[in-house]
Amino acid sequence: MYRTHTCGELRLEQKGINVTLAGWVQTVRKFGAITFVDLRDRYGITQLLFGEELNKVLEENPLGREFVLQATGTVSERSNKNPNIPTGDIEILISSFQVLNKSAVPPFTIQDDTDGGDDLRMKYRFLDLRRNAVKKNLELRYAVNRAARNYLHQQQFMDIETPFLIKSTPEGARDFVVPSRMNPGQFYALPQSPQTFKQLLMVSGYDRYYQIVKCFRDEDLRADRQPEFTQIDCEMAFVEQEDILNMFEGLIKSIFKDVKGIDYAEAVQRMTWEDAMWHYGNDKPDIRFDMRLLNLKKPGTVYTDKTDSAVLINGADFKVFDEAETVLAIAVPGCSEYSRKQTDELTEWVKRPQIGMKGMVFIKCNPDGSYKSSVDKFYTEEKLKAIADAANAKAGDLVLILAGAEERTRKAISELRLEMASRLGMRKDDEFKLLWVLDFPLFEYDEEGNRWVARHHPFTSPKPSQIETMINNNPVIENAADYLNHPYANIKANAYDMVLNGNEIGGGSIRIYQRELQEKMFAALGMDKEEQLHKFGFLLGAFEYGAPPHGGIAFGFDRLCAILGGSESIRDFIAFPKNNAGRDVMLDAPATIDQKQFTELQIKLDLK
Amino acid sequence: MYRTHTCGELRLEQKGINVTLAGWVQTVRKFGAITFVDLRDRYGITQLLFGEELNKVLEENPLGREFVLQATGTVSERSNKNPNIPTGDIEILISSFQVLNKSAVPPFTIQDDTDGGDDLRMKYRFLDLRRNAVKKNLELRYAVNRAARNYLHQQQFMDIETPFLIKSTPEGARDFVVPSRMNPGQFYALPQSPQTFKQLLMVSGYDRYYQIVKCFRDEDLRADRQPEFTQIDCEMAFVEQEDILNMFEGLIKSIFKDVKGIDYAEAVQRMTWEDAMWHYGNDKPDIRFDMRLLNLKKPGTVYTDKTDSAVLINGADFKVFDEAETVLAIAVPGCSEYSRKQTDELTEWVKRPQIGMKGMVFIKCNPDGSYKSSVDKFYTEEKLKAIADAANAKAGDLVLILAGAEERTRKAISELRLEMASRLGMRKDDEFKLLWVLDFPLFEYDEEGNRWVARHHPFTSPKPSQIETMINNNPVIENAADYLNHPYANIKANAYDMVLNGNEIGGGSIRIYQRELQEKMFAALGMDKEEQLHKFGFLLGAFEYGAPPHGGIAFGFDRLCAILGGSESIRDFIAFPKNNAGRDVMLDAPATIDQKQFTELQIKLDLK
Repeated sequence: MYRTHTCGELRLEQKGINVTLAGWVQTVRKFGAITFVDLRDRYGITQLLFGEELNKVLEENPLGREFVLQATGTVSERSNKNPNIPTGDIEILISSFQVLNKSAVPPFTIQDDTDGGDDLRMKYRFLDLRRNAVKKNLELRYAVNRAARNYLHQQQFMDIETPFLIKSTPEGARDFVVPSRMNPGQFYALPQSPQTFKQLLMVSGYDRYYQIVKCFRDEDLRADRQPEFTQIDCEMAFVEQEDILNMFEGLIKSIFKDVKGIDYAEAVQRMTWEDAMWHYGNDKPDIRFDMRLLNLKKPGTVYTDKTDSAVLINGADFKVFDEAETVLAIAVPGCSEYSRKQTDELTEWVKRPQIGMKGMVFIKCNPDGSYKSSVDKFYTEEKLKAIADAANAKAGDLVLILAGAEERTRKAISELRLEMASRLGMRKDDEFKLLWVLDFPLFEYDEEGNRWVARHHPFTSPKPSQIETMINNNPVIENAADYLNHPYANIKANAYDMVLNGNEIGGGSIRIYQRELQEKMFAALGMDKEEQLHKFGFLLGAFEYGAPPHGGIAFGFDRLCAILGGSESIRDFIAFPKNNAGRDVMLDAPATIDQKQFTELQIKLDLK
Repeated sequence: MYRTHTCGELRLEQKGINVTLAGWVQTVRKFGAITFVDLRDRYGITQLLFGEELNKVLEENPLGREFVLQATGTVSERSNKNPNIPTGDIEILISSFQVLNKSAVPPFTIQDDTDGGDDLRMKYRFLDLRRNAVKKNLELRYAVNRAARNYLHQQQFMDIETPFLIKSTPEGARDFVVPSRMNPGQFYALPQSPQTFKQLLMVSGYDRYYQIVKCFRDEDLRADRQPEFTQIDCEMAFVEQEDILNMFEGLIKSIFKDVKGIDYAEAVQRMTWEDAMWHYGNDKPDIRFDMRLLNLKKPGTVYTDKTDSAVLINGADFKVFDEAETVLAIAVPGCSEYSRKQTDELTEWVKRPQIGMKGMVFIKCNPDGSYKSSVDKFYTEEKLKAIADAANAKAGDLVLILAGAEERTRKAISELRLEMASRLGMRKDDEFKLLWVLDFPLFEYDEEGNRWVARHHPFTSPKPSQIETMINNNPVIENAADYLNHPYANIKANAYDMVLNGNEIGGGSIRIYQRELQEKMFAALGMDKEEQLHKFGFLLGAFEYGAPPHGGIAFGFDRLCAILGGSESIRDFIAFPKNNAGRDVMLDAPATIDQKQFTELQIKLDLK
């Protein structure tokens, strides 16, 4: 061993003992005939003091930043204590030392607020990883990993490894494929998730399965997506939705406790998908703050059980509202005194291409009880008050109203809601609010193929009460224009998403475990019998041999860590991430391969 | 929840309470008007008793093997207790039940001694996994996983995930590659191990890293090899070999303790590679028994520090020995009274193509002190006694001697040694003997390329005392015939293998951390500067910025589990293994992919 202690553990109690430390030179400070060196390792920083004699050696062979140093000396009390670090009471009076390795000058500073840009830090990721900010993220990631494993172990879940070289069955996302040398012309696929395997394990009787496992999706990378990502993947047999919700809010609460020291004692809120969309315009609402939408006008088709407040805006001859498919409002607390400049800026914000609205209407609910609006021409103060009241606005609030096509307007008001909350400091990094979103639609309509697609995935069960509806109806859509009246359009999934601070951190469902129902599902997705058997014959077969009721969930491990770490970016919580083009710029991968590899694999390029 | 209790937990103490169980029908036994059903889940088996009334229902809708059943009733004391199972004192008097799912008749019995052949069981792996024998293996695997994590966590190792989509740098084994759609013409590779990443993590200061991680090698599959396999992968900074040996024999002892309840108190034996080859003919000797080789004749070149016992056989004019490159003997305890038939059978055994010897010589050390041999014509009894004594044979032992070309003969005697020990019951499944094999040669000579290849891998450091030899000599082999006299031929690696019962379960090394030495290593392997930079520029670059001394080890997790489970086959310890052609016969993977996938990936087949 190159050391007797780490750079994080020595205290005044060890005063007088002889120690050897090893680590990296963080700083070198010369004071006349003596030199102070801060030596850093994973565990901390310890100050080394080089006296006059060694100082001469240092003058001839100066230490540089990030040199690797082994140094022996006596633990001494510091005259000038540093209360900011745990080792701040002591220093080591060095008697001998050895440079274990030199370092070139790093291309950026190894500090929390580094001067390195993103590209440079990724190219030299091995140096970036030395920064305390990044180290803390990976330590948090490991703590979450450990907390999850401990909880799941206590709950009798078993970690069972599933294969990585599987069969390509592209349903939603694209598979990464792997040519098989031993089976020329054939390919493995990398798993998008261990979905079918964990279901087979339930059929096999393993009862409770988990895995913290890499998954792969060959999708065009949006910001903050990675082609490989990690899931906490879980499945349970003999359960209903309620069992899953209880078990896995327990998991997240246990992680809160172990990792953040937070007692999340309250019950986790639950909300139907329809309510989430209606009240927040979003299926993953951030409920750290209220600011619910007022649906001033809903389109005819989207919400089945809701009534809008169109009466408040109709009959005023305001064409923008009259001609819009959807009109939505929020009441922003305490902003009634926004200046013209500020409301103009907000209007410009919603008109940006990312948001895409044509304009914005506002109502100022003045502290004196009067109302002032950008549409005073069309609405009396009484009517403005009625709208503001319906939006739950109080005196001093600012009501913002957007109007336009349903989906775009809904997304826009949802974004605006988040933006206003951010500006008002209502989205605190250290406040955590969990939410279950339930009762998703089982299907979405695919216009191009005039068929159904599974909103969650093809293994999700409908609500128990709707199984008969699904089995007894033909999934084929005879009349495309009238697809909303097809019996499948209203089937709800036995599925649930867990939302944390406006981010979907996990999702799952009760699964189909009856062959007949699974075949119906595949048929709804447009697969004929032959395709079903080719792709999923093993699963249909398994359902013949005593498949139990089962369900599960998968958490996005990278995102969960990022949110717990108070960050928006999952890349900061991955040791060796890829950039938005799917490249590892440190390795310079992907890369060309040798002709020998092509020959052995019996493939060739076919570049456009 | 479909149940109040599992099938493994009810005892007499629960007598009288009402319970609901769910599980699989293991057996149905009718006795007149009542029926007994054994209900099975992961946790155990509980007997259900269906009385007269329900019996009628059962008659109309009979339960079959592997039906999934939910049943409610009262816990009762059995009249006919079964002491062999933990729930054997009770049965459930059923009041109502529901068939949750039916089962077709399984293609083989779900029992320890199943009637299913290997192929059938793999095709229906989801049923095979129900068998208790397989379940126990996966439970053991999880226990090993958990024990390893707990020990490593206590020792301050951090689990850090490394990427799966990396760069192809084929050195030893072949890479699996993954075409990149977003970077046409380029490929990722799947990692053969996280070797370079864990070294970078040491450069980054993470100090102690571990991962239980899938690795991939596209090799022609010998029996009991899998294209994807799992490693316990570890690395430490600021360590020397001694530190690694201590840390990781601690790991294995901790696994023994947690998983098998075994206190492995004794020190782990250590042996140099040369001694292992000399005394056992093998670099992974099974030391549960002695039976060391007697080197009656060694070839001139292989062992540098050893003296053979050729004096015992020379001058007898026995051509077989005189003309052989190598003559090796073992003394098999207690077999002196083998019949002619038995020695003939052994001779046939060594003549099988897998062993490939031309014959076998034996010396019987009779209990009366006399000696009888198959080469009495050439050797006097005195000479036979001298050979037997040198082989450590006692009265009653049988000395077996093989002669021939060095490598083949050494392998043959090693196999014969294991075979005889197996026959004599000296290789017990429940006895565990650990061994460190040390001081491997750093290089092997590659005749074809007239260059060196790294015996372990190109990141392994030479012994500290031989670093200068490596740096100060030109790796080029000027004179192929004289390669053994090249200074590199005698460089020993700072590497170690851990051997358990004759199986290599782990291997590692102290790594090179100096750029100059690493470049020398790459040069020795025949890589020019350009190739070095293309393949490993990131690592050479990292060594410029303060790389600490470091080393590590990787354990073959599948094999470790198999040995702990008393099995020779790793497939039994993998939930979804592939067959010897690399196929998953359940999924029927690998398989063809769609034309759309080829188009998107811009590759095409190039079948021979």
